[in-house]
Amino acid sequence: MSEIHERIDLTDDSHLFANIQKHIDLNALDIKYLKSIFSIKEIKKKELVLSQGQVCKKLFFVEQGSLRAFNSNEAGKEATLMFAVKDWWITDIYCFANQKPAMLSLEALEDSRVVVLDFNAFEILLQRLPKFERFFRILFQNAYAREQLRILDAISLATEERDRRFVTKYTQIVEKVTQKQIATYLGVTPEFLSSVKK
Amino acid sequence: MSEIHERIDLTDDSHLFANIQKHIDLNALDIKYLKSIFSIKEIKKKELVLSQGQVCKKLFFVEQGSLRAFNSNEAGKEATLMFAVKDWWITDIYCFANQKPAMLSLEALEDSRVVVLDFNAFEILLQRLPKFERFFRILFQNAYAREQLRILDAISLATEERDRRFVTKYTQIVEKVTQKQIATYLGVTPEFLSSVKK
Repeated sequence: MSEIHERIDLTDDSHLFANIQKHIDLNALDIKYLKSIFSIKEIKKKELVLSQGQVCKKLFFVEQGSLRAFNSNEAGKEATLMFAVKDWWITDIYCFANQKPAMLSLEALEDSRVVVLDFNAFEILLQRLPKFERFFRILFQNAYAREQLRILDAISLATEERDRRFVTKYTQIVEKVTQKQIATYLGVTPEFLSSVKK
Repeated sequence: MSEIHERIDLTDDSHLFANIQKHIDLNALDIKYLKSIFSIKEIKKKELVLSQGQVCKKLFFVEQGSLRAFNSNEAGKEATLMFAVKDWWITDIYCFANQKPAMLSLEALEDSRVVVLDFNAFEILLQRLPKFERFFRILFQNAYAREQLRILDAISLATEERDRRFVTKYTQIVEKVTQKQIATYLGVTPEFLSSVKK
């Protein structure tokens, strides 16, 4: 691992700043500080930025491209928890917050660029700039709301309608994911998904 | 509706204060202020504190008893999103945060006592005591993590194992929920759940 050599600094035109400024104001000093703690990572298609079993130390913001979060069980069966497209944040939140081994792997669906924040830097950021408590409160509130809707869909809708909603929610990546990946997101077999779509 | 007449003030021994102080400190002035904006509501078994279709204006903290959050579809089929036991917060988070008609109803599983915070008071609280941004950041971060685990279970585990996890997660209320309610939480029919348990 040569993380130090790979480190790329954030530039002023990163989408990250606009994303944060949807909810809180940033001044020039804040931006300078953020540039010192966030870094950029370029990832190739199918590369993992987090592997199931590793301690999940990082929070990712998708600057460009798209990622998939999935779990593999002992029999090798995959379950896709979420996809993240440009301007989305993603991590294994349970394992990140509790600094435990990840239950999820995060893989690039295409060549992508992510902005990375380390857990320790996240904790220090919240102490140093408490307005980030507000930013992350809103971010996690929205994430919680999104997952609530996802569970409601998962336990109340037929597979056909859930597939339709997937396409609406993730228009940006419909072309980039395989039917097999969509099936693992819906929790059905690819064969069943294919029979439903006919 | 006679909400004004029903209003019961919070007392110093409310579990709410201990719950908040898990994450942030409260001084005497804070507690005085919280008492002025939170109120207590006694609810009878099967009574609703939120009805699907109503704008969701309130956030609830369970002081005593237990609640169930569920959605009914057009055919009258119920899906249970979550249960909340003593010391848990509950609302229809998507509709609360966006002040939209609720997708969920909240019903008491037994005679219960909830602490209630109005959406407007929530917004003012965050402005007046910014340390509550931290409190709710942690609350929503944990809720997001919990829902992530729930989705992973829902799409990756067999019904039998999911029923077992339900019993472990909700030990406090296993006696108070019906098999039918558990089936709507797992997204299966009561007949299927019963066949799996045999």
